[in-house]
Amino acid sequence: MTTTMLKQRSLLGLKELSKEEIQSILDRAAFWEANPNKVEPVQQGKFVANMFFENSTRTRFSFEVAEKRLGTEVLNFSAAVSSVQKGESIYDTVRTLESMGIDAGVIRLKPIGVLAEIATQIKVPLINAGDGNNEHPTQALLDLYTMRKQFGELRGLTVTIIGDVMHSRVARSNFYALQKFGVNLRFCAPQNMRAADLDVSYISIEEALQSDVIMMLRVQLERHENGMIKSAEDYREQYGLTMERAKQIAPHAIIMHPAPINRNVEIDDELVEHPQSRIFTQMQNGVPIRMAVIERALG
Amino acid sequence: MTTTMLKQRSLLGLKELSKEEIQSILDRAAFWEANPNKVEPVQQGKFVANMFFENSTRTRFSFEVAEKRLGTEVLNFSAAVSSVQKGESIYDTVRTLESMGIDAGVIRLKPIGVLAEIATQIKVPLINAGDGNNEHPTQALLDLYTMRKQFGELRGLTVTIIGDVMHSRVARSNFYALQKFGVNLRFCAPQNMRAADLDVSYISIEEALQSDVIMMLRVQLERHENGMIKSAEDYREQYGLTMERAKQIAPHAIIMHPAPINRNVEIDDELVEHPQSRIFTQMQNGVPIRMAVIERALG
Amino acid sequence: MTTTMLKQRSLLGLKELSKEEIQSILDRAAFWEANPNKVEPVQQGKFVANMFFENSTRTRFSFEVAEKRLGTEVLNFSAAVSSVQKGESIYDTVRTLESMGIDAGVIRLKPIGVLAEIATQIKVPLINAGDGNNEHPTQALLDLYTMRKQFGELRGLTVTIIGDVMHSRVARSNFYALQKFGVNLRFCAPQNMRAADLDVSYISIEEALQSDVIMMLRVQLERHENGMIKSAEDYREQYGLTMERAKQIAPHAIIMHPAPINRNVEIDDELVEHPQSRIFTQMQNGVPIRMAVIERALG
Repeated sequence: MTTTMLKQRSLLGLKELSKEEIQSILDRAAFWEANPNKVEPVQQGKFVANMFFENSTRTRFSFEVAEKRLGTEVLNFSAAVSSVQKGESIYDTVRTLESMGIDAGVIRLKPIGVLAEIATQIKVPLINAGDGNNEHPTQALLDLYTMRKQFGELRGLTVTIIGDVMHSRVARSNFYALQKFGVNLRFCAPQNMRAADLDVSYISIEEALQSDVIMMLRVQLERHENGMIKSAEDYREQYGLTMERAKQIAPHAIIMHPAPINRNVEIDDELVEHPQSRIFTQMQNGVPIRMAVIERALG
Repeated sequence: MTTTMLKQRSLLGLKELSKEEIQSILDRAAFWEANPNKVEPVQQGKFVANMFFENSTRTRFSFEVAEKRLGTEVLNFSAAVSSVQKGESIYDTVRTLESMGIDAGVIRLKPIGVLAEIATQIKVPLINAGDGNNEHPTQALLDLYTMRKQFGELRGLTVTIIGDVMHSRVARSNFYALQKFGVNLRFCAPQNMRAADLDVSYISIEEALQSDVIMMLRVQLERHENGMIKSAEDYREQYGLTMERAKQIAPHAIIMHPAPINRNVEIDDELVEHPQSRIFTQMQNGVPIRMAVIERALG
Repeated sequence: MTTTMLKQRSLLGLKELSKEEIQSILDRAAFWEANPNKVEPVQQGKFVANMFFENSTRTRFSFEVAEKRLGTEVLNFSAAVSSVQKGESIYDTVRTLESMGIDAGVIRLKPIGVLAEIATQIKVPLINAGDGNNEHPTQALLDLYTMRKQFGELRGLTVTIIGDVMHSRVARSNFYALQKFGVNLRFCAPQNMRAADLDVSYISIEEALQSDVIMMLRVQLERHENGMIKSAEDYREQYGLTMERAKQIAPHAIIMHPAPINRNVEIDDELVEHPQSRIFTQMQNGVPIRMAVIERALG
């Protein structure tokens, strides 16, 4: 495969992806969602490796279901049960699976910059399933898909992402993608959870409630020991989507969350399956989005 | 799926299952056992998720073989390698897999009452693969199948279950099922391992040896620190099926055990593959039983 | 299956395998390598269980790809996530999977002698994927395959294996196989890493560099606390394949390593993908070799 073809088939992030490419993925996902058959063996005989160097339930299964619906063979690698423990580097594992003849690799990893470097050395398409605090492109694609399906089009929507945007690859991928579509994107976060690298307006939680889309992020308080937030209760009171606050959102607005959820921290338990919540719809949409992304990778 | 249909396809326990329903599962298992082809793609394209929130080898593989023999796609979830560690609840995991479009879920979990609650919230059939100390219906079904195959019919058999019945979901499921078939069921256990919730006679180990079926349970002494039993040797001497005791059982009687086995604690090593033991036959019968149960779930 | 047939289909080691049998496996692997289709469903409907009682990435995936390319159903067992933790013996696990109807088992385990014993008790073919310090036959087969492909034939080649041969099942399997083919095999190792059970000449690292094949082994210094080697740097200086030393190897010679690699300990980082290195080629060759071995097992 030529470097250009490889680059066109890989999905490392949404920062560099054009609006047209994103649209074409969303359209293809709509096709798969409309297709009622569970398994379409259009990619039979191909091998896809899911290489997770960081724990995951949702994302890994979502990819696995997508791959199997397309009819591919699936290899699941999880760092916790492998020779990565013996000091084998991430690169060696990816290179090993490439040697064995995989047709595409899905990869999640922590260290920043490693994915970009590996992608220049590996000759099969790679799909980013979350790399450090950088990007999580398939999550943002399914978020866009969910919004587009809800509102018809993305242009003109006001979207607010609330929480620990500094550490959030979901926030970054959404930031890169949504601005290509003329979305009015704002963040809402305590001072010590803000993302210095992203040029976005920060608004108050009260203002955030006036958005068309209110996207909550998972908060990990242990990462912010010296901030203004002292406890989960404290976070909930200042930035959580409580039942009280949910009463202020517009009737047409929707609540989103990439999960996993800290119930009663960033979002109240009763709101997770609230009629205006699209949290499980997001997970449902993840499968056709990933089918489209893998199909694109396999060519 | 309507609530009634769902309830008819799920298998949460044998307490509420009619004799006729149990018989129909056993009959269908006999069909699968008689069918020599390894894989029958009768359920091709369907997805079954094995969700194990508690460690398991035997049961998980038995379900996986059954699912693959029916031609379904299989998703394996094991709590030890997932975001359950990040605090995600069992419910969220099951709901997540439901969102991704699974057709049925097999579930094993520890906390009592959680399965029954989840089953009211989830819209795909669920199969209980062991919930706390409550029920383990597919194990009891394969036990009944093994006994029926051995003796032609269940009515009139004397069956004794020996060991830690208090903590045993196997004992409970067998209790519920066997009494529907007119089996003379007794338990044998030290005072502090008896099940207060089950109305059964307790007999001595000597009397137990006179049964048609002698079913040993795995004992976990660490659960019984203040009882009369002080050590594994002590347990073996008082309640173990030793070589010495095995000489007293009738020539037509069979020895059963749900495994995993503590060799030389509840049963002597030499008896595990004794001609009268059906322990590995039970495992063999687990596959057709689970094929029948999954088929029933998939409809 | 008769005992003789079973013995002919199992692959426990290369010590007892004839030159002709080895050649026939290598030839069949060449057929699979030449076959460009990813999946050949020649063994569809069969079940193969990969039972790894010791961690592995490369070997497990290599077998899994081979099995799936042949169209078999695959069951993956890894001790770290199973009831082996509850004390279940290796034998019970293998016997359990046999009861469930697997057609062949791939097994990796630590304790010496256990595989040979289990093989006499189990009625399905077993393939050794590494047992303690004893043998790792499929690794040696892919090594032979890599050498044969490189040099046309094995007879007359000089091969040196460098490193911890005492603990190396790779060295032992290569020793047994290579001597059947008239290869001039030598070892190179510090005194406390030599294999007392193998009749081989030991040469200096300088002499080793003159070989046609220079095979480096992974070193685990923690196993050799009281030797002459005090540190990784020390090992590298005395026995490592450094850039400096690599300049002395012949232009036609090749570098091999069974991996996983300790970069900059037994081999310098820059040499891993050096033009004369065949390390990732070895991994590539592992798939057709294992297809041939599994096919032979399934008959």
